[in-house]
Amino acid sequence: MNFNTDFQPVTTQPQEIEEKSFKIITEELGAHPFTDEQFPIVQRVIHASADFELGRSLVFHPHAVQAGIRAIREGRALVADVQMVQVGISKPRIVKYGGDVHVYISDPDVAAKAKELNTTRAIVSVRKACEAHDGAIFAIGNAPTALLELIRLVKEGSAKPSLIVGVPVGFVSAAESKEELMKLDIPFITNRGRKGGSPVAVAVINALSILADAQGR
Amino acid sequence: MNFNTDFQPVTTQPQEIEEKSFKIITEELGAHPFTDEQFPIVQRVIHASADFELGRSLVFHPHAVQAGIRAIREGRALVADVQMVQVGISKPRIVKYGGDVHVYISDPDVAAKAKELNTTRAIVSVRKACEAHDGAIFAIGNAPTALLELIRLVKEGSAKPSLIVGVPVGFVSAAESKEELMKLDIPFITNRGRKGGSPVAVAVINALSILADAQGR
Repeated sequence: MNFNTDFQPVTTQPQEIEEKSFKIITEELGAHPFTDEQFPIVQRVIHASADFELGRSLVFHPHAVQAGIRAIREGRALVADVQMVQVGISKPRIVKYGGDVHVYISDPDVAAKAKELNTTRAIVSVRKACEAHDGAIFAIGNAPTALLELIRLVKEGSAKPSLIVGVPVGFVSAAESKEELMKLDIPFITNRGRKGGSPVAVAVINALSILADAQGR
Repeated sequence: MNFNTDFQPVTTQPQEIEEKSFKIITEELGAHPFTDEQFPIVQRVIHASADFELGRSLVFHPHAVQAGIRAIREGRALVADVQMVQVGISKPRIVKYGGDVHVYISDPDVAAKAKELNTTRAIVSVRKACEAHDGAIFAIGNAPTALLELIRLVKEGSAKPSLIVGVPVGFVSAAESKEELMKLDIPFITNRGRKGGSPVAVAVINALSILADAQGR
């Protein structure tokens, strides 16, 4: 196959595209209730979803942004509920501080344990993550059951995550699980309603890691 | 750590959750312009996004669903623009018919070639995919530049995909790239506007593979 390479691509510089996008987002969003430290996260969520309603639905625990920045800079583990979240997270700014992104949902022992206990792999994988990592950042974009289990472990005192990013999407239990998260007095970033998803979880973490990295400069 | 496992999880059966979700979606969506064969795809996109507006924005080439089903059953290659799409696609129903899901964006030779040509990795990876696979299904959830390049290759006759699922998200070129796709007279599934993303591309492909698999029963 012979490719003609002398055409003019509409857009070639990712950095330029991003800057242009962020400018559009700031203009179109207008007045909003977010603080200066929360705003870059809201902006990146809107960038990933093209959904202003979703951006406006974000809810931050007052210490969430600083807790997330600190945890990344301390090299705390990141735990993703599903592979889509894991692969979406930009690794260099995590690895640089000694952290890594883990996902347990597809582990054979998780599947076996879920079958044994007649429960979901999402629930068992959250338990495994809490056993493996103290003070981890959790990024839950898909499974309300994972978020509900994490909330339960926090309440009973067996899990002490440094930050919970809980933004599952869907029609059954997603909104409810996020309302439960909002009742906790530990650092969380979540949103109201049914919307959410892997790209939202990824956008929040990537925005936090950019803030964390900028703080070191 | 000692886990209390006698609590009642709110939801434990994924199949049950999905059925309940699909019932809610059908009820709340009400009247819609989609055909019976398009509807399961629309339903799954809404399920993945909790966004009825996004579901309603889907646009199908008249032969798209049948072309997609045929390509999956013939074991044609699937090409994802980014890893998030690749890992989200359910593999068993693809592999069963001899297909597989490829992604080239992170290949070292793609990065090198992009640098050499002063263009994006997305563009180079689309070229590599077209060289590697005849009649592939493309699933583009992220990069408008990848979609625009694929459209260009189709127009010049160097690419003949069996189906293009083109649903990039964003503020710069995403909507425009999808409008260009709608002008082609080859099988495509896309949507109008800025919204889209990896979960949308994944939902379309997973819905198609369920339809493909059901046809064989």
